[in-house]
Amino acid sequence: MTDRIIDVETVDLRFPTSRELDGSDAMNEAPDYSAAYVVLRTGGADADDGHGFTFTIGRGNELAVAAARLVAERAVGMSVEEIAGDLGGFARHLLADSQLRWLGPDQGAIHLGTAAVVNAAWDLAAKRAGKPVWKLLADLSPEQIVALVDWRYLKDALTPDAALEMLRDRRAGRAEREARVREDGYPAYTTSAGWLGYDDAKLARLCREAVDAGWDSVKLKVGADLDDDRRRCRIAREAIGPDRWLMIDANQTLGVAEAVERAHALAEFGIWWFEEPTSPDDVLGHAAIAERIAPIRVATGEHAHNAVMFKQFLQAGAIGVCQLDACRLGGVNEAVAVLLLAAAYGVPVCPHAGGVGLCELVQHLSVFDYVAVSGSTEGRVVEYVDHLHEHFHDPVRMRGPRYLVPEAPGYSARIRRSTLDAYRYPDGPVWREGTAGDGAGGANGGRGAAR
Amino acid sequence: MTDRIIDVETVDLRFPTSRELDGSDAMNEAPDYSAAYVVLRTGGADADDGHGFTFTIGRGNELAVAAARLVAERAVGMSVEEIAGDLGGFARHLLADSQLRWLGPDQGAIHLGTAAVVNAAWDLAAKRAGKPVWKLLADLSPEQIVALVDWRYLKDALTPDAALEMLRDRRAGRAEREARVREDGYPAYTTSAGWLGYDDAKLARLCREAVDAGWDSVKLKVGADLDDDRRRCRIAREAIGPDRWLMIDANQTLGVAEAVERAHALAEFGIWWFEEPTSPDDVLGHAAIAERIAPIRVATGEHAHNAVMFKQFLQAGAIGVCQLDACRLGGVNEAVAVLLLAAAYGVPVCPHAGGVGLCELVQHLSVFDYVAVSGSTEGRVVEYVDHLHEHFHDPVRMRGPRYLVPEAPGYSARIRRSTLDAYRYPDGPVWREGTAGDGAGGANGGRGAAR
Repeated sequence: MTDRIIDVETVDLRFPTSRELDGSDAMNEAPDYSAAYVVLRTGGADADDGHGFTFTIGRGNELAVAAARLVAERAVGMSVEEIAGDLGGFARHLLADSQLRWLGPDQGAIHLGTAAVVNAAWDLAAKRAGKPVWKLLADLSPEQIVALVDWRYLKDALTPDAALEMLRDRRAGRAEREARVREDGYPAYTTSAGWLGYDDAKLARLCREAVDAGWDSVKLKVGADLDDDRRRCRIAREAIGPDRWLMIDANQTLGVAEAVERAHALAEFGIWWFEEPTSPDDVLGHAAIAERIAPIRVATGEHAHNAVMFKQFLQAGAIGVCQLDACRLGGVNEAVAVLLLAAAYGVPVCPHAGGVGLCELVQHLSVFDYVAVSGSTEGRVVEYVDHLHEHFHDPVRMRGPRYLVPEAPGYSARIRRSTLDAYRYPDGPVWREGTAGDGAGGANGGRGAAR
Repeated sequence: MTDRIIDVETVDLRFPTSRELDGSDAMNEAPDYSAAYVVLRTGGADADDGHGFTFTIGRGNELAVAAARLVAERAVGMSVEEIAGDLGGFARHLLADSQLRWLGPDQGAIHLGTAAVVNAAWDLAAKRAGKPVWKLLADLSPEQIVALVDWRYLKDALTPDAALEMLRDRRAGRAEREARVREDGYPAYTTSAGWLGYDDAKLARLCREAVDAGWDSVKLKVGADLDDDRRRCRIAREAIGPDRWLMIDANQTLGVAEAVERAHALAEFGIWWFEEPTSPDDVLGHAAIAERIAPIRVATGEHAHNAVMFKQFLQAGAIGVCQLDACRLGGVNEAVAVLLLAAAYGVPVCPHAGGVGLCELVQHLSVFDYVAVSGSTEGRVVEYVDHLHEHFHDPVRMRGPRYLVPEAPGYSARIRRSTLDAYRYPDGPVWREGTAGDGAGGANGGRGAAR
């Protein structure tokens, strides 16, 4: 019997994180971390199916789920061999429904849903190959890597031939890099200390704990009141000492001029990067900010919805740090496109993570980047947040401030069935018990529940 | 009893236009023109409620409907006086749910849904004022117009003060312009002749008929095969003579270099503008194309999802024609922001229309632009497509190649109940009768049905 996608399962999975203000920032006061979860069913054991997801923060997750289902239906009936043999063609096939494309193109709910399906297909292909996704990617030839990417809108910044040449150059030293990253892990930074909803005492304590645990860098949420930002930056800087990296993140709350002012006002605390200073669509605004706040680096990407946006951020010199998101982009293929572009422009990729399972995914992308694309970890750190890993079959493994390289076949995306049952919205027991409406706003909230 | 939003009705409305290949282009081979339709119910007659919609092309319209419902629920319980008294604050309130914002921000299905609700609120406010939307807008003071806009991300291109000054300058001559446009109508161009799915004979016939009917400009779909494009341009140019405008539209199918080549290859046919040459997100790409194909103007906007994108197209000198869309943008408020930006940069606005009811909406925006913002119709034409107007209570009225100014109170958005019943997807008789799957792909199609 042919190994084939015979069915699709989707789950609207939501965690009531708003109850604790984990994940609070100046734009997102009370998120309920959620996933639009997809299983590409092949008729065997659940562990052998393709698992993938995209990440949202609560209300509206059903749109991402519905989008994922619409896109996934385009995969039903296809053979796994056909998919795994041409993952570039498969991703283009998913994106090629012109009626669905109108809802983007390549942005919003339909693109989030596409990411879930593409990620599930990579999970499936990697399992069949008996490799983790990073290794599946790293073992591809330069030609095969280039064939993963839809070049239509990218060639003015990087031609497939130039990408090929770059990848061929990077083949030197690949084996040593793979051995080294397996030995040492990949560097990370922590956002767990700096959520905006935490009070000063908790912030100071968490920063000290981070230092004690070996972290070299800490990120703070800023962007609301300037005096609060100054006080919190001072607390954090005092707690981590003068040499560690302090990053700040305004979560898109500022205009261009305000972002420049904010960066200047906080510069004395030694800021490594300033993340999401303004609208994630504003390439030219980021470029203007970058020019005026150097040497502080501008970082963005968790809401950069496709490779065309990253292309422009790089072309305009608008970012010093590329924070691609494994689920905002249309899955592994588009992430590979961004890795190639960033390497070509010499900009380090420090993926956005946290949320639900983003750490589990992006570790694969960064390890692949190190082994086969950029060939470097210099200036590169993967975000780490210590939330929700217990729900995964193959959770990230940290050794101090470093990700240990994932070894299990697949994309580390599979969530435990007990979690899917418990947190399924709106009928899982976590939501059904009526505790969802208490206090700071559950995902089932009505108007303004999360303001 | 207070006049209040007591309930929301949403309708998934789809027309099986793919059966005739109306609306076919190089990206969208077989669209089923659709609307996510919203009624803000106030408890009175249907005619007195707020009607609005957004436009999609078929599959996935349910996502826009679900998004519109999520957003509209934020309006339930609000008084009409509260909404109509601060339509700027109302639009910001709809956009301010941080969990829903994650699905964009300000893009994709959630933004399309927001547009439907904002448009419905304007329909309602205009009905209560007893005015068409264009007149409600034109009668606002400069201060009130400026207060409609969310300036957070726009101030680096245009400050509220500069917008105020511009609007005050335009007060001179306003009464004469209003009288003139009521007398003469507003200029239009036709896309009805040039759909890609039409054969040469039909193209030639439709172009000649357009000329006979008084049209001064005709738009052709291009972007697939170059020889086809050259042949079709030649047919069209011969049919319309040397002096009328010929516009071409590639519907995003080309890369930057290919777009430049295509424009050069077709330049001999006298091209007024080249529309959607490449990815709608590619500000820098459009700027590069614009520089290299002048004096042919670059036009884009039907997929420019928010004011931040238009801001950049204008800042970069990337467009010579601004084709805002009344439903892709987040409704009237964001369209006003784009009108102000375009006027400040001296770029004519020629709105995207066609689809379902886009002509009905954008005529209000262009008449307002002429009366109160740009003060000019020079180089400005509103797209016109002769589809689906019969389904509206207050359809556009054309006099030759000009839109007559709408006079009925509201936003001309109300669709006939008989249409809502007949074309409701999937349970309306048009879809239920099983004719949907015949031939070129109905909205209920499975994988690849519309390729």
